[in-house]
Amino acid sequence: MADKNNNEKLQGLRGELQKKGLAGYMVPRADEWQGEYVPARAERLSWLTGFTGSAGQALILEDKAAVYSDTRYTEQMKNELGDTQYDGETQTKDNKNTPGSWLLKNVPEGSQIGYDPRLYTVKQIEKLQKEIAEKKIELVPVDGNLVDEIWNNQPDHPMDEVVVYPEKYAGQSFADKRVEISGDVKKAGAKAVLLTAPDSIAWLLNIRGSDVPNVPIALSYAVLHENGDVDWFIPAAKVSAEVKQHIGNKVQIHEFEDMPDALKNLAKDNKILLDENTTPIWFNKLLIDAGATTEHMDDPIVWRKALKNETERKYITEGHVQDGVALVKFWKWIDENALNGTLTELDGVAKLRELREEREGFKDTSFDAIVGWAAHGAVVHYRADEKSNATITKDSLLLVDSGGQYLGCTTDNTRTRAIGTPTNEMKESFTRVLKGHIAIADARFKEGATGRDMDVRARQFLNKAELDYGHGTGHGVGAYLSVHESGVGIHEKFDKPLKAGMLVSNEPGYYQTDENGIKDEYGIRIENLVFVEETGDEELKYKFNTVSLTPIDQNLIDIDLLDSDEIKWLNEYHQKVYDNLAPHLDADEKTWLKKETAPLSRVPAP
Amino acid sequence: MADKNNNEKLQGLRGELQKKGLAGYMVPRADEWQGEYVPARAERLSWLTGFTGSAGQALILEDKAAVYSDTRYTEQMKNELGDTQYDGETQTKDNKNTPGSWLLKNVPEGSQIGYDPRLYTVKQIEKLQKEIAEKKIELVPVDGNLVDEIWNNQPDHPMDEVVVYPEKYAGQSFADKRVEISGDVKKAGAKAVLLTAPDSIAWLLNIRGSDVPNVPIALSYAVLHENGDVDWFIPAAKVSAEVKQHIGNKVQIHEFEDMPDALKNLAKDNKILLDENTTPIWFNKLLIDAGATTEHMDDPIVWRKALKNETERKYITEGHVQDGVALVKFWKWIDENALNGTLTELDGVAKLRELREEREGFKDTSFDAIVGWAAHGAVVHYRADEKSNATITKDSLLLVDSGGQYLGCTTDNTRTRAIGTPTNEMKESFTRVLKGHIAIADARFKEGATGRDMDVRARQFLNKAELDYGHGTGHGVGAYLSVHESGVGIHEKFDKPLKAGMLVSNEPGYYQTDENGIKDEYGIRIENLVFVEETGDEELKYKFNTVSLTPIDQNLIDIDLLDSDEIKWLNEYHQKVYDNLAPHLDADEKTWLKKETAPLSRVPAP
Repeated sequence: MADKNNNEKLQGLRGELQKKGLAGYMVPRADEWQGEYVPARAERLSWLTGFTGSAGQALILEDKAAVYSDTRYTEQMKNELGDTQYDGETQTKDNKNTPGSWLLKNVPEGSQIGYDPRLYTVKQIEKLQKEIAEKKIELVPVDGNLVDEIWNNQPDHPMDEVVVYPEKYAGQSFADKRVEISGDVKKAGAKAVLLTAPDSIAWLLNIRGSDVPNVPIALSYAVLHENGDVDWFIPAAKVSAEVKQHIGNKVQIHEFEDMPDALKNLAKDNKILLDENTTPIWFNKLLIDAGATTEHMDDPIVWRKALKNETERKYITEGHVQDGVALVKFWKWIDENALNGTLTELDGVAKLRELREEREGFKDTSFDAIVGWAAHGAVVHYRADEKSNATITKDSLLLVDSGGQYLGCTTDNTRTRAIGTPTNEMKESFTRVLKGHIAIADARFKEGATGRDMDVRARQFLNKAELDYGHGTGHGVGAYLSVHESGVGIHEKFDKPLKAGMLVSNEPGYYQTDENGIKDEYGIRIENLVFVEETGDEELKYKFNTVSLTPIDQNLIDIDLLDSDEIKWLNEYHQKVYDNLAPHLDADEKTWLKKETAPLSRVPAP
Repeated sequence: MADKNNNEKLQGLRGELQKKGLAGYMVPRADEWQGEYVPARAERLSWLTGFTGSAGQALILEDKAAVYSDTRYTEQMKNELGDTQYDGETQTKDNKNTPGSWLLKNVPEGSQIGYDPRLYTVKQIEKLQKEIAEKKIELVPVDGNLVDEIWNNQPDHPMDEVVVYPEKYAGQSFADKRVEISGDVKKAGAKAVLLTAPDSIAWLLNIRGSDVPNVPIALSYAVLHENGDVDWFIPAAKVSAEVKQHIGNKVQIHEFEDMPDALKNLAKDNKILLDENTTPIWFNKLLIDAGATTEHMDDPIVWRKALKNETERKYITEGHVQDGVALVKFWKWIDENALNGTLTELDGVAKLRELREEREGFKDTSFDAIVGWAAHGAVVHYRADEKSNATITKDSLLLVDSGGQYLGCTTDNTRTRAIGTPTNEMKESFTRVLKGHIAIADARFKEGATGRDMDVRARQFLNKAELDYGHGTGHGVGAYLSVHESGVGIHEKFDKPLKAGMLVSNEPGYYQTDENGIKDEYGIRIENLVFVEETGDEELKYKFNTVSLTPIDQNLIDIDLLDSDEIKWLNEYHQKVYDNLAPHLDADEKTWLKKETAPLSRVPAP
């Protein structure tokens, strides 16, 4: 929540603006690595404005200020910005209300708006500059972050140690990866490729870190030369002797302070590749000023990282057994205790962590768990806090979306369970979501089929009833890396072919809110992770293989809405859940799981 | 079939090659209008080689000759080219065996291959020339068709009269259309657009003709000027006083012979638009030689023609009632007579024509009916002839794909019916096809959803059982025009958005052939025409509305494979069929249709 100092901080920042002669300044939520999770030091937007959402930016003018985020955060902005001078603005998909339109409306012609070039990508600045060109408003990079200037107790850079990620888990050596990617660089006739995504660097170097919550990455940059040499920009104090030995003499370590000089040396008359969608514009400008030609190349690690090798698939499969055991224990506990009327959402969050911590290989949660009772389940990115924390009562749905980081495996799982008696509408909606989930899980498809081709399958049964959900059907998932990984997806904008080895979530949902004029508010989502696998057939070459192992609540199924293929899939999936998890469960747990995974069959009509 | 003269004709053509000093010559199936149906005069490929398929071309060298067509015709080429010196070659989708690869293999470096530039489009020649450039083989346009030179009794140009297509049916006046399209021409900064597709011209001028079988078009060309004037190239003898009055004084009629001069006058220093995918290269060359700049523009009539206006929709809906009545009478006749064991496929073709001829507004069939018993049903483009004509026996499937041309309405309908007792496999496959059909018919979708997005829905249930079909799911259909119309489609290459008013077929299928090692060969296809309509909902903006009215064989349904949504759709569709057709049927027919359209419901499990 906004503390009473937010307006004082705003005043302080405006003082900095005056010193620099700027009409305004932009403060994004993004850090220097454009990550979803950022270290405490980089929580500038939250510190300045009080808004704690995971996406957005503040626009500060001399007499006006706004925070922009997306529809997920409309409500949250209202609460968190309530006592401040910031207007909370929701950027909608129709592009009618955007930071650009706000600047056009509120900034005089020909003004200069400052920004920290380490926090904005090449493409972001290009796009916004174009939007405001008609009023000759200029975006100006400012050295040194103006928020940092006024932030007295700003936390330090995280200095956690980097660790080796053994080839036993990675399945491919750093040396091999280095040679492969440098081949791409050579082929493009370039001197080097600049890598700024910490999960790409973690994959390339076979290292992991703990600089941010939930994702085992080390915040660093790297340059991979066409000859296979690497310059790695990271505080040397974080790199142990063991890691140094692992990366060997082809890698030069440099401090962040030395980056400008090192890059200038590299730049001279050379062509340098970088990904304009993810690289801060600071790099592009520095390289060009030093005489380089920069050229866009999609981060060459993204698609490789998306294709999990055999070793990665093995540990991902094993990790899901561990995660499934924790989840079965959790749902049994919910089943046995929820109707007492005393459990809260935060009790659920704590229990999930406790049960996962007991599992072999567990390192961390892969994101803050969503435990949403009734109406809270309809808030797609709901996180319970002390203020919102609801007590689970009865006759509605409990939605739980959670995941863990295990050595070798990142998980992400959502289940929705009826507590007490669900309504027929709840059952119908749940069954339509389940049909969409199965339409993906049990699909067969040809070479060239895309994520978009799958997305329509997941929505079709809801659509028939004029229902839908406002998010994609699936995102890529890392191998002991980020729970949201690019390179694969199931949504209308992912028009690249799906390939064997990709790991992606399958998570259709439905959210009943009172906007629809219906009183019962609830959320439904069924999420498993699935691998793309070859079928052996030449034509229908691919299928999905579900690796997540958790029962699906049969009390919420309207069997008449299922066809015999779907019933067969469900029963086979439940058998697989039982067979894989039972060896790790005690007698009570086995009995409970047996009941939950009992085969479904059509009851005779009356 | 090949007559004994095919080799003599080949010899004759080779004589012409020598005179011209050419290494080879190409003879396409296409006519001067690139149409699917061509007049007798333009059946050059069939006359020369004996091959009667609807697509393909002959390549003739001094010592070697081949006919290329696609996989549909592999078997037919074998039969029809058997006694000739032509090799029958199948051009496959992987592009490994193409006319280009054949020329590269068989023609010496630097040779010249002739072609008639009125029969090949700009894009076709560009593509082939590129493919054979590595051996410096040159494609050379030859004035005057070499087949025509040796074809003694070649039929004349069709001289059938053109008729006015009243605005009552067209729903928009020629004057309006003229102004609209000339606006496009002006906007593109051009002098005129060249129109070479006869169905585009029929739509623009609100006229119809009868130059070719099955499609009511007049073979002609037109130039629409930016000021709205039209030059129409057509034998004046075909244009009655009534048509002249209808088109008015903005249209100048020219004989084909005057075309070169007229185009030369037009060309001088002007920019002329033309569709490179459908325009014969002869036009492009002539215009450029005369000083014009030509620029590609997608035929501006194609997308407009695809969007049926309210009047067109009314007559299309009414025409389908007439067609449905004929089809109900046909299927009742089949139901009552097929098991006698005397009916043949050709009896079916004749009966269909007879029943359609009785219907109000009937003008012609929209294509040659496919009546395929058992294994013949698995041949997608099967046409029974005296030699292939099978007698319908029992315990397999009868596939009938047919359509009519009614004033204001073109129809296309496929049904598959069990004669005797179907196997469980037949029922399962039929039900999977039906589920795909319903997945389209009952879909709701957003603005921006494409034909490709629909295609995956239609295949998904077959795919789950590792089955599929080798054709698209749907093609556009004209309003008393071509039964195969571009501008809309349901297949993986149609990635344009679907819009309200489009009329498209919904025809998933399944073809069981002994290539799969299974003895029972049969074909299944369920085809209705559907309109894209608005739902009234802002998000899920569109749905399909089925206009074809014919019962679906319930003896072939495995109800366990249907969900309750699908059962509901089927019952509502059958109710609509009965309600719309019953007023036009006698008591016996009504009784039969009542039984065929009786509601399906789940039987209690045993």
